[in-house]
Amino acid sequence: MMTSMLEPGQIIGILGGGQLGRMLAQAAAQFGFHVIIYCPDEQPPAAEVADQHICAAYHDPDALLAFAQRCDCITYEFENIPVETVALLAQHKPVWPDARALNVAQDRLTEKQFIQGLGIPVAPFVAIDTREALASALAEMGGTGILKTRRLGYDGKGQWRLDAQSDLDQIFDDTQGQALILEGLIAFERELSVIIGRGIDGQIACYDPALNVHRNHILHTSTVPAPVSADDAAHIRDIGTKISSALEYVGVLAVELFMTSDGFMVNEIAPRVHNSGHWTLDACGTSQFAQHIRAISGWPLASPTRHSDARMTNLIGNDVDKWPTLIREPDHCLHLYGKSEVKAGRKMGHVTHIMPLGTIG
Amino acid sequence: MMTSMLEPGQIIGILGGGQLGRMLAQAAAQFGFHVIIYCPDEQPPAAEVADQHICAAYHDPDALLAFAQRCDCITYEFENIPVETVALLAQHKPVWPDARALNVAQDRLTEKQFIQGLGIPVAPFVAIDTREALASALAEMGGTGILKTRRLGYDGKGQWRLDAQSDLDQIFDDTQGQALILEGLIAFERELSVIIGRGIDGQIACYDPALNVHRNHILHTSTVPAPVSADDAAHIRDIGTKISSALEYVGVLAVELFMTSDGFMVNEIAPRVHNSGHWTLDACGTSQFAQHIRAISGWPLASPTRHSDARMTNLIGNDVDKWPTLIREPDHCLHLYGKSEVKAGRKMGHVTHIMPLGTIG
Repeated sequence: MMTSMLEPGQIIGILGGGQLGRMLAQAAAQFGFHVIIYCPDEQPPAAEVADQHICAAYHDPDALLAFAQRCDCITYEFENIPVETVALLAQHKPVWPDARALNVAQDRLTEKQFIQGLGIPVAPFVAIDTREALASALAEMGGTGILKTRRLGYDGKGQWRLDAQSDLDQIFDDTQGQALILEGLIAFERELSVIIGRGIDGQIACYDPALNVHRNHILHTSTVPAPVSADDAAHIRDIGTKISSALEYVGVLAVELFMTSDGFMVNEIAPRVHNSGHWTLDACGTSQFAQHIRAISGWPLASPTRHSDARMTNLIGNDVDKWPTLIREPDHCLHLYGKSEVKAGRKMGHVTHIMPLGTIG
Repeated sequence: MMTSMLEPGQIIGILGGGQLGRMLAQAAAQFGFHVIIYCPDEQPPAAEVADQHICAAYHDPDALLAFAQRCDCITYEFENIPVETVALLAQHKPVWPDARALNVAQDRLTEKQFIQGLGIPVAPFVAIDTREALASALAEMGGTGILKTRRLGYDGKGQWRLDAQSDLDQIFDDTQGQALILEGLIAFERELSVIIGRGIDGQIACYDPALNVHRNHILHTSTVPAPVSADDAAHIRDIGTKISSALEYVGVLAVELFMTSDGFMVNEIAPRVHNSGHWTLDACGTSQFAQHIRAISGWPLASPTRHSDARMTNLIGNDVDKWPTLIREPDHCLHLYGKSEVKAGRKMGHVTHIMPLGTIG
């Protein structure tokens, strides 16, 4: 295990150039690290706040080697980075989170099996290989479920909600031969998430669980504190701690959960900083981005304590046009990602309303 | 008066590439602005977190014109920028704070006369033109005083403390013909400062006054709340408001004060974000850097309310080597400026200890 600490002035490489990479780059700069963004896009949001940008494909071995040679430590901003890319880089420099966490998180089947193996409840699931298997599994689940691609889905993409009216032939065609999983529908009362930092030495720092509300399968708001009891909050932290420890995870991990009448159930995990943790930028002394940089640098983790209550609202697509109104709202912290083109469903920014402790919960 | 608002995606130019420019650039990026740093240094700390860097002299008219053409609005991170530079740029694009504020703040004599003209106490002062004038002014002040260059001083540079033992001939020679001012020594109890934001429409947002402690003429710590009564704090805010309004100032202004047994006295003003306001990064929803960007963009100002008590400590020269200890301290927010070379007296970073409201005051 690497236990030496990265020193200010050293270079952190980030795979991916979106808003998460952008906010990671800003956090790294705060600690005096230099940042190289590796990303196939020509003008990614992260590059303009980073020291350097390597514009190359994730499968380009020469560019990856050059990137690794210039970095002292490497991380990534999204879990759909090819595992081979991470494996190649890891031959040269430390990459955190490591390939194991990435492998587990990239495949919904592996992920569910892993979490279930820790004794943590998950939604019922069945791996689906054929049209016939889909029909029989759906029948066993009572005729409803959500069919998902095992890999590469996000924000509701690669998902089909199934019921008695569904045209299974058409839907199975639409999946184009991708590996699939059928998940049971969960009658949840609330959606929650918890952001956990884990250091190279195993130190854990859990932020307060957030209440999440989605719209059109995209996160709409995250609110802290979540309306759960102290015991429930502790239980959620235990779940997050158990998962990150079992993975010997290094960095910040997000765990999304359903709160049901039977207790908590893990929906999915993300091996990275997470949209539902953006409130930490304005409501904590150390944000999820700074905590992730500390963790991968071998630094001790900082306190995840909140100094404020907070409600984060995503600005999706044309929502960003509301900025002239939002900047007039007191105690609203606006964050825009510098994306030049507005597209439907595209995350353009977020705004966090901070309030004195005790205002919400 | 320009009242239209800058829009996210537009370009803010910053003259100067040090840590203040760096933190301004990061604040501008948070609002989706693009940033161009103009600075004669090849690898200034600000450039690595900004979109572009123009490396040219402040007196280079062609480079300044090219800079102005690419920007939508221009500001600066230090008051020793040549007034002609600002005047040239202002022919093409809005520059905030404007030349008037810069003119007043660049010359200690003009500054003191201006503040005194507003009915605000300042230390006794006399303009000094000759060796003989120095001797007689010093005698009138009771034999002690501080001789300062009227222009270009900072962090105690360009200052000579005078008393009966001083070799006036030698000191006058050392000033090398620069315009001078002799100031009376003030028996102050405390040094304080207040950071004021003023919008294009005249809106004012005053942060809480900070208690400042200097070491070797360089700021060592800033603490909020300062140990002053609510009435005194309101009085300090009034002083800041009066100065910024009289200047029709746009942006963030710092006012340094002495607290004496006879009341408050202004020491000096800085037409820019200020070291004694760095605590706002970690103790307020909107930092002085974000507030400055809002002001020069024609945006409404945000609340300057603190969510935490705070003590900021500068890391000067080799102080920066303490980082491995500082990152182990709970609730200490470390900020390093990415400067590769450590020099005695050089500001390498700062650390802010945040505490729940009411811990200090």
